[in-house]
Amino acid sequence: MISVILLGAGNVASHLYNAFSASDSVEIKQWYNRSYDAIKSFENDTEVIDDLSQLKEADIYIIAVSDDAIANLSKLLPFDNRFIVHTSGSVSLHDLDKKNSRGVFYPLQSFSKDAEIDFSTVPICIETEDKSRLQTLKTIAEAIGSKHYKISTEQRQTLHLSAVFVNNFTNQMYRIAHEISDAKSINFEILKPLILETANKVQDMSPYMAQTGPAKRNDKKTLKKHLKLIKDEEHQDIYKLMTKSIQKTHGIKYRFDIKRKNNNER
Amino acid sequence: MISVILLGAGNVASHLYNAFSASDSVEIKQWYNRSYDAIKSFENDTEVIDDLSQLKEADIYIIAVSDDAIANLSKLLPFDNRFIVHTSGSVSLHDLDKKNSRGVFYPLQSFSKDAEIDFSTVPICIETEDKSRLQTLKTIAEAIGSKHYKISTEQRQTLHLSAVFVNNFTNQMYRIAHEISDAKSINFEILKPLILETANKVQDMSPYMAQTGPAKRNDKKTLKKHLKLIKDEEHQDIYKLMTKSIQKTHGIKYRFDIKRKNNNER
Repeated sequence: MISVILLGAGNVASHLYNAFSASDSVEIKQWYNRSYDAIKSFENDTEVIDDLSQLKEADIYIIAVSDDAIANLSKLLPFDNRFIVHTSGSVSLHDLDKKNSRGVFYPLQSFSKDAEIDFSTVPICIETEDKSRLQTLKTIAEAIGSKHYKISTEQRQTLHLSAVFVNNFTNQMYRIAHEISDAKSINFEILKPLILETANKVQDMSPYMAQTGPAKRNDKKTLKKHLKLIKDEEHQDIYKLMTKSIQKTHGIKYRFDIKRKNNNER
Repeated sequence: MISVILLGAGNVASHLYNAFSASDSVEIKQWYNRSYDAIKSFENDTEVIDDLSQLKEADIYIIAVSDDAIANLSKLLPFDNRFIVHTSGSVSLHDLDKKNSRGVFYPLQSFSKDAEIDFSTVPICIETEDKSRLQTLKTIAEAIGSKHYKISTEQRQTLHLSAVFVNNFTNQMYRIAHEISDAKSINFEILKPLILETANKVQDMSPYMAQTGPAKRNDKKTLKKHLKLIKDEEHQDIYKLMTKSIQKTHGIKYRFDIKRKNNNER
């Protein structure tokens, strides 16, 4: 049984609390938060505290607070030589105070407050300063059904960046499609199956192999037609830049000239 | 029983052939293709022909050939006053020869040659010149389990454009993430659950509501860190443009200055 103390009460902390609580091989010894109110409702299930001096001894302390607060909270911990980890994708292991043995336990998923999380679908990126601590992280990842990957700080930061592309930027592509189709009173429902299919396809196939469409085919007639259809200048820029990017990836020489104005086109 | 004659032997035609064959309410009367070889293997199951003069009478003729070939094939049909449709997202109804009653039967999905298609997940956009023909298209869509949506030519062309955003451009986002993470020897597997989650989220929630991340939070520290991490100039441009687009959508004033060079940044 591994004893865990959670620090913080945001999305990641709350989801980890639920997942660890449901596991037989992890005991949540204490839950700390700066504001007691945020975790008060759990006081019958675990020991909740808002005072760092009350922290007990545990196998691992998981700091799940906002990126900017991690370094400072790690400094305030009233002990040393214990095992502390943060859960951030972008903060370095070395931002944790070095009086303790440091590590990272980064679940790569987009956490919403309300939606339940099935941790069996959440890859956890783990990193430790002291090799002997790695097994603890593997054990608690497995306890909540997650796959774990040993990842360096540099790799984790690159993953965090990659996640922005596949999550935030992809979601913005959905948003733009929503705007464009809304403007013509088209039901966004029609596009939802294609959104799912596009994500499903790359589960078994590389994005390179999965690519289709007018940019990849270098179908100039359709490319020009599409550009004419787009009214918003920023959406035009995105259309041009993404088309250029696809054509570069697939070794196609034809490119939109990004500077050329529509009214100069034939 | 509705009698259908298929023209063409590409992805859409082949998938429609399979779906109609499995249905009790549609009879495939003939399958025409310019090259006999492509459909020869079906000659025991249906009447396959490569000569337009052999075309029989049917309730509907479905022209599922490449966009550029549609108009010409419709001209070559040796009859008039019958019901003909094409299956393209971008070709106008009026590109079909007007000697016949015209329509469109556009399945909005990304078709691969090999992957089996479950038509119950494929929305079909239907359009007819003659209102009385609409029911025929509804019936054959329902026969293969598809939802159908009545869509004008202008709406269909806008949908086709929107599909480029949610399919091709999204897939290119996956590709860029693949490149970025590959360069640091990161297993792309780690990103796959997030790709699925991002697509799943907008099935029940608008893309606007689903957005998260550093651009939406206006987390300048992370935005700058990410830009520094990106080596490829085109990927930097995409990062900046998509960040700007997200911030515009969410009414955030801070924007990367696209023209500002990295080395002028502090």
